Amino acid sequence: MLVPKYGDSEGSDMTLTRQEMPAIPAEARRIFREGKWTQRTTGLCVGYTNAAVAILPRDLAFDFLLYCQRNPKPCPLLEVLDPGDPMVMSLAGGADIRTDVAGYRVTVRGEVVDEPSDILQYWREDLVTFLMGCSGTFESALEGAGIVPRWRQGEESGSGIYRSNIPTVPAGRFSGPLVVTMRPIPNHQVSRAVQVSSRFPGHHGAPIHIGDPAAIGIDDLSKSEWAAGPKILPGEVPVFWACGVTLQTVVEESKPDLMITHLPGRMFITDIPSEQQAVM
Amino acid sequence: MLVPKYGDSEGSDMTLTRQEMPAIPAEARRIFREGKWTQRTTGLCVGYTNAAVAILPRDLAFDFLLYCQRNPKPCPLLEVLDPGDPMVMSLAGGADIRTDVAGYRVTVRGEVVDEPSDILQYWREDLVTFLMGCSGTFESALEGAGIVPRWRQGEESGSGIYRSNIPTVPAGRFSGPLVVTMRPIPNHQVSRAVQVSSRFPGHHGAPIHIGDPAAIGIDDLSKSEWAAGPKILPGEVPVFWACGVTLQTVVEESKPDLMITHLPGRMFITDIPSEQQAVM
Repeated sequence: MLVPKYGDSEGSDMTLTRQEMPAIPAEARRIFREGKWTQRTTGLCVGYTNAAVAILPRDLAFDFLLYCQRNPKPCPLLEVLDPGDPMVMSLAGGADIRTDVAGYRVTVRGEVVDEPSDILQYWREDLVTFLMGCSGTFESALEGAGIVPRWRQGEESGSGIYRSNIPTVPAGRFSGPLVVTMRPIPNHQVSRAVQVSSRFPGHHGAPIHIGDPAAIGIDDLSKSEWAAGPKILPGEVPVFWACGVTLQTVVEESKPDLMITHLPGRMFITDIPSEQQAVM
Repeated sequence: MLVPKYGDSEGSDMTLTRQEMPAIPAEARRIFREGKWTQRTTGLCVGYTNAAVAILPRDLAFDFLLYCQRNPKPCPLLEVLDPGDPMVMSLAGGADIRTDVAGYRVTVRGEVVDEPSDILQYWREDLVTFLMGCSGTFESALEGAGIVPRWRQGEESGSGIYRSNIPTVPAGRFSGPLVVTMRPIPNHQVSRAVQVSSRFPGHHGAPIHIGDPAAIGIDDLSKSEWAAGPKILPGEVPVFWACGVTLQTVVEESKPDLMITHLPGRMFITDIPSEQQAVM
């Protein structure tokens, strides 16, 4: 892959094309830091673990951590930073969470107030950063196992996202229903999909439901608040996994005085090869 | 198994023998609650998940939860109760953590002040209860897989416990070296021991080191602050797992104004069959 000498143009407003983006996470994060990439990160640095970002004030952090502990399938914690500390430790060497994501969403009391390319101006000494697994990691593994997602024409996401009627376990100010992703899987590959995703408990793990959308409160797969999934074809089974949108929804409802997340589709790219996230 | 009509003698000082103890967790917990069993719980309610207990004030609970999140091998959380709430939710129906353990240890600023049979008098509205996995669960599974512990004459514990030189990841006021258990495993069964214990990430999971005690700072397996393990016989390999004593040691050093744990050997017996704790 061709890597441009982007270091030479530091401070300029040059942006890069997807083909020009480097394959090494530290290099990609540097480009995000320089504000030269604000698009979706899907397809960048293939083979490296992506993480979702949630940043909250210290006074909510215990409830949030407890909620994640009680609901590890939708909220699989990969790393939690010390209050006030923006430097990522184990997932990415030298990464500053305030600048090294391609886009951020800033929410004040439940309302989106900004979608900046860095959050230096919003940083506070009481902010705690939570990095969580996301389904991109097991999707790569599924693909490696021959379970290739059937992307719909014109869709950026290959999976549907739905609100289920399965309650999560409440913690402090946080409670609400589980949000799930759905992927249509051919009958003969459902076992394999369970096996492969089970290896990634840090990235939502095994499916939470297989087969009947109505049984978990989803009446119509063609309708979604977020993204309707691909149509189920003959010989396919709808398979449902817990989704990180659960947490976002639950926290938004508690209207914290400040919450910062990654902008949808702009994940934090870690230095950890995805395969290292597999438990066995 | 003969179960006495202990309900008829409620309030008496009758104690039971190991043979008289019921095999059902809820029944065993009732006997603990009545103060009729204060001995070690090893061998009681075989096949059910045991848990270690740690109870701390709310002001330390975030650091404690963060420490567990960062160090899941020594500190595998099974359930965390709400501040002030003594009722266990998912692990055991109707269990009150203040009374349903066979013995407690109460520590004030790092000093043991009491070893009562219940903690009703110590309970406070700001106490948070943490229930953690323990190695008993994977030991049963090892035994089921034909890896039978070589109990030493006169020892209650079949495994050695040692302080290693592997640092844990600090969190807030908590930091310190990893404490490990050691079991001698015959060469041909080491792979199987890894496979079997890997299935129980909630109970310390896979070994953290296999083969060379000196490499992790253990110079002499015959010496231990806690328990020296069985002698390594020809054809055996010392296999090391992360141990819950890590947390106890780390927290004691921070001298919290109050910490309550289970009395060593008196585990909280849950309603969950051990096999349900296996991830695959």
